[in-house]
Amino acid sequence: MLQFRNDYSEGAHPKVLDALLSTNLQKTPGYGIDPFCAAAANTIRSLCGAPGAQVHFLVGGTQVNKVALGAFLRPYEAVIAPETAHIATHETGAIEQDGHEILTVPAPDGKLTPAAIQPVLDIHNSEHMVLPRLVYLSNTTEVGTVYSRAELAAISQFCRANDLLLYCDGARLGSAMTVEGADTTFSDYAALCDAFTIGGTKNGLLFGEALVVVNPALQPHFRYAMKQQGAILAKGRLLGVQFAAILQDDLYCTLARHANAMAKRLRNGLQELGVPLAYPSPSNQVFPVLTREAAHALENICAFEVQHEVDETHRCIRLVTSWTTTAEEVDALLSHIKEEVQR
Amino acid sequence: MLQFRNDYSEGAHPKVLDALLSTNLQKTPGYGIDPFCAAAANTIRSLCGAPGAQVHFLVGGTQVNKVALGAFLRPYEAVIAPETAHIATHETGAIEQDGHEILTVPAPDGKLTPAAIQPVLDIHNSEHMVLPRLVYLSNTTEVGTVYSRAELAAISQFCRANDLLLYCDGARLGSAMTVEGADTTFSDYAALCDAFTIGGTKNGLLFGEALVVVNPALQPHFRYAMKQQGAILAKGRLLGVQFAAILQDDLYCTLARHANAMAKRLRNGLQELGVPLAYPSPSNQVFPVLTREAAHALENICAFEVQHEVDETHRCIRLVTSWTTTAEEVDALLSHIKEEVQR
Amino acid sequence: MLQFRNDYSEGAHPKVLDALLSTNLQKTPGYGIDPFCAAAANTIRSLCGAPGAQVHFLVGGTQVNKVALGAFLRPYEAVIAPETAHIATHETGAIEQDGHEILTVPAPDGKLTPAAIQPVLDIHNSEHMVLPRLVYLSNTTEVGTVYSRAELAAISQFCRANDLLLYCDGARLGSAMTVEGADTTFSDYAALCDAFTIGGTKNGLLFGEALVVVNPALQPHFRYAMKQQGAILAKGRLLGVQFAAILQDDLYCTLARHANAMAKRLRNGLQELGVPLAYPSPSNQVFPVLTREAAHALENICAFEVQHEVDETHRCIRLVTSWTTTAEEVDALLSHIKEEVQR
Amino acid sequence: MLQFRNDYSEGAHPKVLDALLSTNLQKTPGYGIDPFCAAAANTIRSLCGAPGAQVHFLVGGTQVNKVALGAFLRPYEAVIAPETAHIATHETGAIEQDGHEILTVPAPDGKLTPAAIQPVLDIHNSEHMVLPRLVYLSNTTEVGTVYSRAELAAISQFCRANDLLLYCDGARLGSAMTVEGADTTFSDYAALCDAFTIGGTKNGLLFGEALVVVNPALQPHFRYAMKQQGAILAKGRLLGVQFAAILQDDLYCTLARHANAMAKRLRNGLQELGVPLAYPSPSNQVFPVLTREAAHALENICAFEVQHEVDETHRCIRLVTSWTTTAEEVDALLSHIKEEVQR
Repeated sequence: MLQFRNDYSEGAHPKVLDALLSTNLQKTPGYGIDPFCAAAANTIRSLCGAPGAQVHFLVGGTQVNKVALGAFLRPYEAVIAPETAHIATHETGAIEQDGHEILTVPAPDGKLTPAAIQPVLDIHNSEHMVLPRLVYLSNTTEVGTVYSRAELAAISQFCRANDLLLYCDGARLGSAMTVEGADTTFSDYAALCDAFTIGGTKNGLLFGEALVVVNPALQPHFRYAMKQQGAILAKGRLLGVQFAAILQDDLYCTLARHANAMAKRLRNGLQELGVPLAYPSPSNQVFPVLTREAAHALENICAFEVQHEVDETHRCIRLVTSWTTTAEEVDALLSHIKEEVQR
Repeated sequence: MLQFRNDYSEGAHPKVLDALLSTNLQKTPGYGIDPFCAAAANTIRSLCGAPGAQVHFLVGGTQVNKVALGAFLRPYEAVIAPETAHIATHETGAIEQDGHEILTVPAPDGKLTPAAIQPVLDIHNSEHMVLPRLVYLSNTTEVGTVYSRAELAAISQFCRANDLLLYCDGARLGSAMTVEGADTTFSDYAALCDAFTIGGTKNGLLFGEALVVVNPALQPHFRYAMKQQGAILAKGRLLGVQFAAILQDDLYCTLARHANAMAKRLRNGLQELGVPLAYPSPSNQVFPVLTREAAHALENICAFEVQHEVDETHRCIRLVTSWTTTAEEVDALLSHIKEEVQR
Repeated sequence: MLQFRNDYSEGAHPKVLDALLSTNLQKTPGYGIDPFCAAAANTIRSLCGAPGAQVHFLVGGTQVNKVALGAFLRPYEAVIAPETAHIATHETGAIEQDGHEILTVPAPDGKLTPAAIQPVLDIHNSEHMVLPRLVYLSNTTEVGTVYSRAELAAISQFCRANDLLLYCDGARLGSAMTVEGADTTFSDYAALCDAFTIGGTKNGLLFGEALVVVNPALQPHFRYAMKQQGAILAKGRLLGVQFAAILQDDLYCTLARHANAMAKRLRNGLQELGVPLAYPSPSNQVFPVLTREAAHALENICAFEVQHEVDETHRCIRLVTSWTTTAEEVDALLSHIKEEVQR
Repeated sequence: MLQFRNDYSEGAHPKVLDALLSTNLQKTPGYGIDPFCAAAANTIRSLCGAPGAQVHFLVGGTQVNKVALGAFLRPYEAVIAPETAHIATHETGAIEQDGHEILTVPAPDGKLTPAAIQPVLDIHNSEHMVLPRLVYLSNTTEVGTVYSRAELAAISQFCRANDLLLYCDGARLGSAMTVEGADTTFSDYAALCDAFTIGGTKNGLLFGEALVVVNPALQPHFRYAMKQQGAILAKGRLLGVQFAAILQDDLYCTLARHANAMAKRLRNGLQELGVPLAYPSPSNQVFPVLTREAAHALENICAFEVQHEVDETHRCIRLVTSWTTTAEEVDALLSHIKEEVQR
């Protein structure tokens, strides 16, 4: 069975495992107050050019989004997000559970713009409606598209002009920073966002998201919020050890670059086959549109997820590559798809 | 530096690590819907003699308590717990964050009894007060004491007679089941509790608590509550792999028994030195009372936590053993304490 | 200044005030446990033909929606509502504050249908998304339209077939039951809904909404939820006294019928003037579309709210009649509008 | 039946009712944005000597406590309160519902002191515990005792030195300011507290508590929090009208003084009868200790509440006077008690 279901189907990169193994019997204080976390946090601050940033390590993506937004906002303060946002669609109301309404904005390509946000501000003009206070975006987006530095800067400028916080969900930040033509780096996110995450789960770790809190106003007492939400790992050093390993020698970007390259190979092959793509994604998620029959047949040889039904006869599926995906697997998948589309 | 700070200072038992390594590159569906979790859950159901129980795997102790109690209770429903309960003292209001008041009960030795619970029911008799609905206890308790089967059965019977749910926090369940004279087994907890946890973090895993939901009324939609709280691990199979490894060949109890044996060695040594113990703990937490000077001096050679100040000149400290504690370490510690108390 | 801003701009109907005055110095137990509330609840049960229904009296509309939905639902359970729903637009995230996502459905005329709800159920098919559990509608709707009995019955049947609760916000229930051609009565709501409200604030009371909880599964411990939300009035009998007065001699419907008649007179006049109406509302809210100039000029002589901008030159405004609106006021308003549209 | 159950058993003072009647048909904007509320707020600011204070009008006591503390605090921030505090005992976890733990402090006479608060700060010293952030007290207290200005000033100074907010629940503030020897005025509360309430429900209004938010840091967006909690009254002017009436010509203090005088007459009578009082209350709540038989017999002729069981043969009951209590009623009650105690 070919595996293109997602980028978190397997364990960790061998170097990450090695780091866990070699430190396994060292005893450290718990809860992330240990030398490994301190070192990984310093590395991140350094990569970000943000010596004053707080760095917190959390276990998962929904968890970090929930804890961060819950800590940053009062319950009546709302989040503005694209309608495809993970927090709006696939986190089971985790943000609402802490009281916050999510105000979704149409985003055909998954990306926000100042123009798309403005009407939300226009409408929400009194205490009878929630108070828009934070803009959530993810890079890469849920549909694999990527914000350029200029696009992020425009949103950042808009947010600062309108008293809105900017939060970037970087579950696939590595992919965003390493697609062809990418022009963002860690330090851009630190410069443009109030807080952002560096996703490890989908790029080589067993688990782990680093939250970088750049805005000093958002820093006080953050660990109280983490603990209250059950989000401080007892053996917190596991996160520090893993992040230290993945950030060494540019491994984080190397893995992401590989996933992107495999996705590009897949896209190129699909284009040669004349298979349309639902979104202009340059990253490690590819969204071909197949006939339902072809999509159905493909399920026999490949694990993947259905994105949505395009019409009564066509289905958009999602194919995800990871640091473990091989060119052979991509080619094998293309070969199967070729059979189906030429049937 | 000797390490008696806690039982989660290091990584995982080698067999657990081996299991993670050997399965590392297998690809499975995420979120705990994988064969490893299914197998571990089956093992637990089997050990519990509870074929109808739900088993969920969560990452940490505060998390599992918060998600479970949050899912089981309406916000106005309150939890009854001993005043020393972890949820009442060291989880930063995680239970309150979901709306629930915790009604604490005096418990000098850390243990609840029906007689101690009854007054809470007597007082809370109208909708102007919260509705007591769930009894929380932990075995071992926060002060290292252990409930016998008869004690648990009495509480269980009392709960059922009073429309109260019974929840056992088993963060140190292994220790409770393997102390000298212990008479409880997994199946007792399944028979007597509505839900309970089997702690892995403090007994050989990198992380992980198994939640066993025995009462069918508490089972529907539980994974929705988990997900909303950010408590479904993306690579959920890591939990299944670890629990399968630790439950094989009785390793779980073997490790706990070792920690208990080391604690007993420590207690015996302390008694020989005439050092009083603050609690009658037979398990892997030991609570000697030292002069402040002795306690202070000890900090130079041993990591531990202060439990509380006994009086103006004496301090109760907490010494915790684990599956990694060696007899040599215990003896070295005793030797240091001997110096101090005989100074 | 003419007053068409809303139907809660003044105090109470004289008969309601008289009832408050005549009982003012009687002493009763607090918190709604008094003979006045008991009598009013009995009257409501009787009018509804629902002897087993619980009746609770709350102070306001946002409050009753929040308390009811909060009590009925687990945090991960979501509400389905038309996109114009009051809870989705003008209650500042009150429902989200208790954890619930609101899933809005397009509803050009403000009304839900089974066909509009079905896609929400289709999409929400796993624990990674919220669990749709309750359908919220209001009658009359936010745009003044009215559900017929058949329409409500179709939704009710759909809900029961799909394990969804049905809740009707009756802030303007009197208006809905007394428009021309109306075919619903109190007993229809009791038969078709799991719970519904009978709005008093907008129909003759100083304040007050009666919540009728028909479904026995939703009844236990409801007053605990009320109290925890700060929603039990100390002098609760004020609600009982008022509802008893307004429900006597059909006063509730008489007042609503008057408001509807005034709205009809207004609509007729607008139609004669050729002023288009944005919604096919037969009830006490009228939504003319005027040029921005006309709308702006009207502000000088009449209090009203802007509904939305239709296009760059036209504005939809909202004109609301109440039990205090007179034919003279309507005619004066029409006369002003005539001047503007014929300018 | 004599009525000493509480001070909210009847309606409103005639002058308050007159004000409601005389303004009944005036039409104003809703939600407290009206001239009546503006005028009442100005009066309060003036009485408080606090021109920069925000004044909000809410319907009830639990509601105002819940909304205020919910708005002022992050969920992990805790409230310090005396163990007898209304929020800790009789508000059904309303504060916890918004996430906050209440840390109770022993207070035999119902009053906090810096010395009693200090240990809470000492214990709560890390993110594994909640963060104490606000001190809640009420004047008069739940057991009828009264803080002097010096006592409040000491607590205020302590709070400011320890980064704690100070909140005074003034449900019975009138009583506190008018007992014999009272030395606090509105302006003292404004000077010493970050926020406090002026209770109307228990002193002449149909309903209503005024919240005075003195600390500018707590003011922004407060009405959003009110609205999200369902706590903005549609016909908000009812609150402004009532408060304006009760604050005119010192009526507020006049009514409270009367209730206190009736309580003093009652206490004097009880002392003559040799009936012990459980608390040294100088205000309108009196707590005699009777034999259970006497207390039981008294139920036949007088409505009151049981405070607590003193021992197996004695019961402490609560007798409350109000602005409607007459000397004749007090004497009749004393006469009945005399019969019982001399039986």
